Amino acid sequence: MDKIKVGINGFGTIGKRVADAIDAQDDMVVVGVTKTGPSFGCKLAVKKGFPLYCTSDDQEKINSFSNEGYKCNGGISDLLSVSQVVVDCAPGKMGAENLEKYQSAGVKYIFQGGEKHDLTGLSYTSSANHIQNLNARGTRVVSCNTTGLSRTLVPLFDQCGSLKVECTMIRRAADPGDSSKGPINAIKPVLKVPSHHGPDVMTVKPEIEINSLAVAVPTTIMHVHSIIADLPEGHGLSTDSIIRMWEQTPRVIVMNGSKDRISTTAEVMEMARDIGRKWGDLHEIFVWEDGVKLVGNRLYYFQAIHQESDVIPENVDCIRSLMGTEEDWVKSANKTDESIARYYSTS
Amino acid sequence: MDKIKVGINGFGTIGKRVADAIDAQDDMVVVGVTKTGPSFGCKLAVKKGFPLYCTSDDQEKINSFSNEGYKCNGGISDLLSVSQVVVDCAPGKMGAENLEKYQSAGVKYIFQGGEKHDLTGLSYTSSANHIQNLNARGTRVVSCNTTGLSRTLVPLFDQCGSLKVECTMIRRAADPGDSSKGPINAIKPVLKVPSHHGPDVMTVKPEIEINSLAVAVPTTIMHVHSIIADLPEGHGLSTDSIIRMWEQTPRVIVMNGSKDRISTTAEVMEMARDIGRKWGDLHEIFVWEDGVKLVGNRLYYFQAIHQESDVIPENVDCIRSLMGTEEDWVKSANKTDESIARYYSTS
Amino acid sequence: MDKIKVGINGFGTIGKRVADAIDAQDDMVVVGVTKTGPSFGCKLAVKKGFPLYCTSDDQEKINSFSNEGYKCNGGISDLLSVSQVVVDCAPGKMGAENLEKYQSAGVKYIFQGGEKHDLTGLSYTSSANHIQNLNARGTRVVSCNTTGLSRTLVPLFDQCGSLKVECTMIRRAADPGDSSKGPINAIKPVLKVPSHHGPDVMTVKPEIEINSLAVAVPTTIMHVHSIIADLPEGHGLSTDSIIRMWEQTPRVIVMNGSKDRISTTAEVMEMARDIGRKWGDLHEIFVWEDGVKLVGNRLYYFQAIHQESDVIPENVDCIRSLMGTEEDWVKSANKTDESIARYYSTS
Amino acid sequence: MDKIKVGINGFGTIGKRVADAIDAQDDMVVVGVTKTGPSFGCKLAVKKGFPLYCTSDDQEKINSFSNEGYKCNGGISDLLSVSQVVVDCAPGKMGAENLEKYQSAGVKYIFQGGEKHDLTGLSYTSSANHIQNLNARGTRVVSCNTTGLSRTLVPLFDQCGSLKVECTMIRRAADPGDSSKGPINAIKPVLKVPSHHGPDVMTVKPEIEINSLAVAVPTTIMHVHSIIADLPEGHGLSTDSIIRMWEQTPRVIVMNGSKDRISTTAEVMEMARDIGRKWGDLHEIFVWEDGVKLVGNRLYYFQAIHQESDVIPENVDCIRSLMGTEEDWVKSANKTDESIARYYSTS
Repeated sequence: MDKIKVGINGFGTIGKRVADAIDAQDDMVVVGVTKTGPSFGCKLAVKKGFPLYCTSDDQEKINSFSNEGYKCNGGISDLLSVSQVVVDCAPGKMGAENLEKYQSAGVKYIFQGGEKHDLTGLSYTSSANHIQNLNARGTRVVSCNTTGLSRTLVPLFDQCGSLKVECTMIRRAADPGDSSKGPINAIKPVLKVPSHHGPDVMTVKPEIEINSLAVAVPTTIMHVHSIIADLPEGHGLSTDSIIRMWEQTPRVIVMNGSKDRISTTAEVMEMARDIGRKWGDLHEIFVWEDGVKLVGNRLYYFQAIHQESDVIPENVDCIRSLMGTEEDWVKSANKTDESIARYYSTS
Repeated sequence: MDKIKVGINGFGTIGKRVADAIDAQDDMVVVGVTKTGPSFGCKLAVKKGFPLYCTSDDQEKINSFSNEGYKCNGGISDLLSVSQVVVDCAPGKMGAENLEKYQSAGVKYIFQGGEKHDLTGLSYTSSANHIQNLNARGTRVVSCNTTGLSRTLVPLFDQCGSLKVECTMIRRAADPGDSSKGPINAIKPVLKVPSHHGPDVMTVKPEIEINSLAVAVPTTIMHVHSIIADLPEGHGLSTDSIIRMWEQTPRVIVMNGSKDRISTTAEVMEMARDIGRKWGDLHEIFVWEDGVKLVGNRLYYFQAIHQESDVIPENVDCIRSLMGTEEDWVKSANKTDESIARYYSTS
Repeated sequence: MDKIKVGINGFGTIGKRVADAIDAQDDMVVVGVTKTGPSFGCKLAVKKGFPLYCTSDDQEKINSFSNEGYKCNGGISDLLSVSQVVVDCAPGKMGAENLEKYQSAGVKYIFQGGEKHDLTGLSYTSSANHIQNLNARGTRVVSCNTTGLSRTLVPLFDQCGSLKVECTMIRRAADPGDSSKGPINAIKPVLKVPSHHGPDVMTVKPEIEINSLAVAVPTTIMHVHSIIADLPEGHGLSTDSIIRMWEQTPRVIVMNGSKDRISTTAEVMEMARDIGRKWGDLHEIFVWEDGVKLVGNRLYYFQAIHQESDVIPENVDCIRSLMGTEEDWVKSANKTDESIARYYSTS
Repeated sequence: MDKIKVGINGFGTIGKRVADAIDAQDDMVVVGVTKTGPSFGCKLAVKKGFPLYCTSDDQEKINSFSNEGYKCNGGISDLLSVSQVVVDCAPGKMGAENLEKYQSAGVKYIFQGGEKHDLTGLSYTSSANHIQNLNARGTRVVSCNTTGLSRTLVPLFDQCGSLKVECTMIRRAADPGDSSKGPINAIKPVLKVPSHHGPDVMTVKPEIEINSLAVAVPTTIMHVHSIIADLPEGHGLSTDSIIRMWEQTPRVIVMNGSKDRISTTAEVMEMARDIGRKWGDLHEIFVWEDGVKLVGNRLYYFQAIHQESDVIPENVDCIRSLMGTEEDWVKSANKTDESIARYYSTS
């Protein structure tokens, strides 16, 4: 079988990670990545051997790459002409314009969670609706927060048949490489109440009722979700059985804050660095075993989300879904994750 | 009427503030404050004219004050012998030992929220149970968080007749003057789930059903509560009527994040500094008007708590309650607050 | 003697503080403060009884105040017509435009350190050049950093006759009420090397040779200066005599990090809150006694600067200098500081 | 040639990194690593195939590993018996005790910069004194700060023949995985003035005269040095020639803050993550090209230090020096660095 040809439009925080994750697979290949002009990111692409393209078709901009010694293989149209699927990792607000380009070029497309569901009318996360995205023309991989909520809530819903959820999101205010955004010493509530974050889960799993509140806090490394989920009468679950279920769920890590000495997101990220993926990424959602408690029908738990990377393996699975090459999301997830694990092994 | 004679046992973060607040009243007087030994805090007490005592009755310790040029008027027993009420502002874990001293000395006593309800069997917050504390031998003013929750929930309960509440507490990790505690860049969930904070409200208002989850974040200035309250069917309230109610509630400030440009706790504290109380304190609970939303029977809102000072006026009211000199909590609260306002007016 | 009539153009971080400090004096009076339009700051002015004016002379803008219930007494020209001196506390980059207004109105003017020396051709700080500013038409009170350096370096220079200084400024990245600026977790060097900060001292004391390097760090409360000063041969000073000198210098506080348990700027600011000035301000420069060390002819020391407030009393002294009412800077400083101390006393 | 057999005593922040770096080389092999007991770190060792030993020889402690399913190969004495060199990565204050064990076992030893020079009487950093350490019985690899200073100062000294240096160290207050230490919002000067950090350079390069001042700030990711170096008359260097020299110095990276958009340590660390070493490490010292300026004979510059990892390659070089297998430090450095680069390449 020929490898799926994937173009990456935008090679920043998400784009560079998606490219690496695709490069780790044996059934797909990065045929090119775009940059707006010559810059540090180009060096990364060259080092990895990803062909460089320009985000624009403007010939002047295309030419500008050679001034800094980079070989640019053409504009976005040129990249689309050699791609079967394009993963859109462009900054927000470019969605509508880019969508048109992808559709006229006749390539499949994957947007990220910065875009709204309405743009594509279809959203994706591996555990929730891989099968509904099968062979679709295009879709949107949901945001880091929605992905995180889906990872733990979908299997819970599948056990229970119904679920009413409230989530308070304690969000990192800026990414680690962003030095301009604050606050330095304050908590910032998102005054749109309830917030848009929780309900976004319903774009991939409409049966889960969910609302959320959100605050931003002065940290750069992870979001934390404080979750309350009401299970239906007669759910038959226990704190323990829920923990066991998550331990067997792909891309969920369950550890014990007390025994494993992981009391904050600082230690979670340190553990992730030990795993050894590039950028110290943690694709998995982290659940504190000793922070899970079922009281009657109400479940309380905390989870931590690595906002820069949890959606990366979902993008790989999503490519297989759109191309119709793997119907079973668990098989795709395992293939994706094992390939990534091999890619980063040092020995 | 003679002024109520109040001793302050412990003159740190809370003690120094309670002393000032009492000093502002015309019906009570600070007869002394204790320190463990000569230190910077003694200078403050001297400047204000509060007689100094030693937290211990050990003669050597008492004598040590004069080495640094401070006049010490005796040990804790001496202070108790001239007090009618003692406000215990000692560090945690001294409760049981101190209680015994207060009881043998035959003075009324007020502990702070760092101690457990079981120590006194009675707790206090102005809006919830002033009347139940009337003429009691002693009580405990609840913590900053419990005080904050009571301020907004009790009037809501009084309107509705029942209330089920879930609160996520986003807590400042250290006080502004504390430079040793972290984390610097992490979120720390309290893994006791649900946390002890919310249910403490039931020590002053047992009819409110409440649970909570808590995280600590790298900020020093305020706690934020993210609150979900389920009102009973037929409550007859609206988002608007609830906001109006809180606007008329003592020690609650309602402002608009967008119109008043108060988007985070940083701007809340700056507004407090403009008010002009010592230490930039904010005795009031801050509610964002545009962060309140009633959806069906479920109310969502955010509030911010100045952890160093919201309990200060409660201690003053509590003295009147224990001494039986004012039965009406609203009258006491108004008297307390107006006296403090006058005390800090500069003109 | 009639009180000096002072207008304050701009009623923000600096303006509100200068107004209060002038209000505390018996030889000057605030005849008005300006705001760009109706906002929270107007409430403060009204509460203090400062007449409100509009920063612009546009009649529409002037009228807009009454929409929100504030009485506006006219535009900036109206304020200037009743002022003898105007203190310009407008945001940066308005200097040239405002200067013209002040000069045509024939009022004396004081700019702040955000403006460059070239605007006025004259700069001011109490200890360095009060006498050179006597009866001048207008001047510029230097920045918080320059003021801080002058406070400790000028008396040192006066003892030694020459001084070569290098200073590394570790700057707070944002003010406490500013929640938008970062970084949250990074150190930001000022890559203009050497930086402009140090040499600004030479606008008030040209005889001191000084350069500086600067970094911004994730804190909101104070700047810290790490200073190396080379004294001339035969200076006759010792670590101890230098400390004693600073202890007797106006607006310098010397404390011991170890004995007084003031190990960081957090404890310095807490001490300032205890002093009881509005906003928890610290007008004084803070020097750690145990961080001063003379090694041969090279002096090492640390000092901390409260960036929001150290220039406030300088503005008051500066008014007296421009009006020629007090030739002796120490007398002016004592009068200023004692008046402020009385103003904030609560008893 | 047989591979050099290296034991690692302590498998924490430094130990785990040193083990990986040795594993990347073809002339040395990790024969074992020690842990105090079974914990998360053991999992890492097992995954990498490093034999586990116990830091103690106590049989009970050795046995405790098997309770958690880890195979422990014995105590520290057993490890020493199969090692030619031991790299001591134990927590501070164990130095004297461990030294005795290493000496009686007759193995060569390398301590880290947490220990004092006096312990070994000999210190090491690749660029300064590789040759003086040749065939020595044991030594100490200097701290991250001293290593950083040596990297840029030693080649400068070698050009000039003399150097007088003052450095202000702006230090990260806690490591990324450490969530307990503060401050959250303060600057903490090190009140031992001048500080011990700078002079430690003289343990590896006694000819450089150097002093330092230090502050800790609320960040976790890097130290920044603000450096002033006085070159001798007739040095013949220029800002430009110094930059060119550092560009050719091993383990120094020179980039442009403005052109490369690396304005803070946040962007430096992000660039390091892109390089792709495990833990996002940056072994190199980072110098801002546009932050270097020679003014007369005085050189100003900033550099950033990745405190967790800059000493890692020095430990590898140091092993070759002690074993006498490579006399030329540049050859060793190149071998070390190229082997590490290969080890982490993903393709």
